[in-house]
Amino acid sequence: MKTTRNTSPEIIRIPFDQMEKEFLRVLAKEGFTQKKGKVCAQIFAENTLDGVATHGINRFPRFIKYVKDGHIHIHAEPTKLHRAGSIEQWDGNLGPGILNALMCTERAMELARECGIGCIALCNTNHWMRGGTYAWKTARAGFVFLGWTNTIANMPAWGAVDCRLGNNPLVIGVPDNDEAIVLDMAMSQFSYGTMEAHKLRGAQLSVPGGYDENGKLTTDPSAILQSKRALPIGYWKGSGLALLLDILAAILSGGISTAEISKHEVEYALSQVFIAIDISQLGNYSVIANTVNSILQDYKNSKTASGLQEVLYPGERVVRARAENLKNGIPVDKVVWEGIQNL
Amino acid sequence: MKTTRNTSPEIIRIPFDQMEKEFLRVLAKEGFTQKKGKVCAQIFAENTLDGVATHGINRFPRFIKYVKDGHIHIHAEPTKLHRAGSIEQWDGNLGPGILNALMCTERAMELARECGIGCIALCNTNHWMRGGTYAWKTARAGFVFLGWTNTIANMPAWGAVDCRLGNNPLVIGVPDNDEAIVLDMAMSQFSYGTMEAHKLRGAQLSVPGGYDENGKLTTDPSAILQSKRALPIGYWKGSGLALLLDILAAILSGGISTAEISKHEVEYALSQVFIAIDISQLGNYSVIANTVNSILQDYKNSKTASGLQEVLYPGERVVRARAENLKNGIPVDKVVWEGIQNL
Repeated sequence: MKTTRNTSPEIIRIPFDQMEKEFLRVLAKEGFTQKKGKVCAQIFAENTLDGVATHGINRFPRFIKYVKDGHIHIHAEPTKLHRAGSIEQWDGNLGPGILNALMCTERAMELARECGIGCIALCNTNHWMRGGTYAWKTARAGFVFLGWTNTIANMPAWGAVDCRLGNNPLVIGVPDNDEAIVLDMAMSQFSYGTMEAHKLRGAQLSVPGGYDENGKLTTDPSAILQSKRALPIGYWKGSGLALLLDILAAILSGGISTAEISKHEVEYALSQVFIAIDISQLGNYSVIANTVNSILQDYKNSKTASGLQEVLYPGERVVRARAENLKNGIPVDKVVWEGIQNL
Repeated sequence: MKTTRNTSPEIIRIPFDQMEKEFLRVLAKEGFTQKKGKVCAQIFAENTLDGVATHGINRFPRFIKYVKDGHIHIHAEPTKLHRAGSIEQWDGNLGPGILNALMCTERAMELARECGIGCIALCNTNHWMRGGTYAWKTARAGFVFLGWTNTIANMPAWGAVDCRLGNNPLVIGVPDNDEAIVLDMAMSQFSYGTMEAHKLRGAQLSVPGGYDENGKLTTDPSAILQSKRALPIGYWKGSGLALLLDILAAILSGGISTAEISKHEVEYALSQVFIAIDISQLGNYSVIANTVNSILQDYKNSKTASGLQEVLYPGERVVRARAENLKNGIPVDKVVWEGIQNL
């Protein structure tokens, strides 16, 4: 069954500074200190600026709800549990996911400066919003980044119908001159946010995104939202990778797994991994930069499929969105913006 | 156009020891020392034993051809180029990929014992055959393994029609009591070996594996083998991951990228990464084992889709194949076995 076409959302453009200020106002009202509120407001605004509203402004109201409901402890600080050489285990103490993840990102870079590679495993944290945030930060500082998080169960294993896997985003970042190449990918073909947005627009997904109630692959977002059978990327492959990322996050951090998280009514107490590699210790910077450049150049020389102008590499769209939105203001659904103003 | 059904290959069963001995005979004839020949013969036999004949016996003749053609230098030893804390860069000196990869696996574990985590980046090596080999070895010794390799270009980027990406297998292993959970996945939905095997059997692929000459997604292996447009897992996602794995392998090792490898007529001088994590330094072994067990138990409790008996986790099929083939002999295509005997 096709979804009916609803009216499109009215898009308005909000300047970055105004959006950040509005987030800070709400955070201060909820009791955030100026310092912590400013950092969270900046990240939420940057995620939206970069074209990832699903993990920026669209998610902000839920973040505030979790604060109000006591799932996010706004004054909590992460504490170090253990160090084993180039690895450290930290407890997020249920603090804001963004702040915990930023701390771990910084600490991973410090360890990498000291040891070539630094790995921070974090238990008991909250949703980090956009995983790419930490990869951009690390890669623009000259480090390689590898990180992932587990999530609440939201995807069936390959061959199953009930959700027991998280979509466990995997994030990889590499420096590219002053910018970065950043892959930020969940293990589901489409996020629930994307499927809901398509449903609202009355649009089909570009490729099959899951199964309908009859077990048939479909591009109809409504059918997948109903069956809750989102498709892992690459069928059995993404299913296997999601399982392994969960296992790694839980055992490296000593934290809980998707199965345990899913016993909660909402998603909190996640396990995450942050790995930084100091490539400046591995060779001459210009040689490394040349390698990256020549790989990207070959990639961009691809012969495109009919109807396409170019192939994009991971993060390329983000750099463009950022430039455009800084200049013209950040596009936001008017209803969402009014919701923020009423918080 | 459907492929026509040919006669199925005649399958015979060869005991492990006999197969290993046969490989060793050929390797000795090619000039391998007893010591190196024994290791290579064992790995080729084990890969076949584990049900991965594509990277075992079926690939052995090509390995011998590359030795004869001078792409694989059978007496070369890997040399350490550089150490930066918990990272080391090694040069494979175009030695046999299996021997180089085993050395790097051992060295990654040594570094992990010393530093919690150990990362070995290897340039100038050859095909490692089955990536899972190194994950099984590491995980059964009690370490977490993460590794990947680049390859010759064999897959178009998302949105492109010409092959500029490798399928760059990613391998992850985690200890599971005396066994392991091992994910060994290339970034293409199906390998060329799998597509060729389906074509020979006159069978369709289980899910779309690429595009035909008209740019339509298809399950017909012949059409994909003709267009050379194999599909990355998860469409744009696997395309992005393949690109990043190549960049990482090249910059961490100081080796060459898929683009450079593809300037050769055949695949050699690859770049690879081997990461081991000593989880015994991260907490009580029984706590970690319990976490893994409880995740697997929850996973196996999945409600299966209609017609399926169970969901399998990565590596589960390998453990079963190994047990069965040890007992009953390793199933081999008779023509392939005769080919080995004639080498």
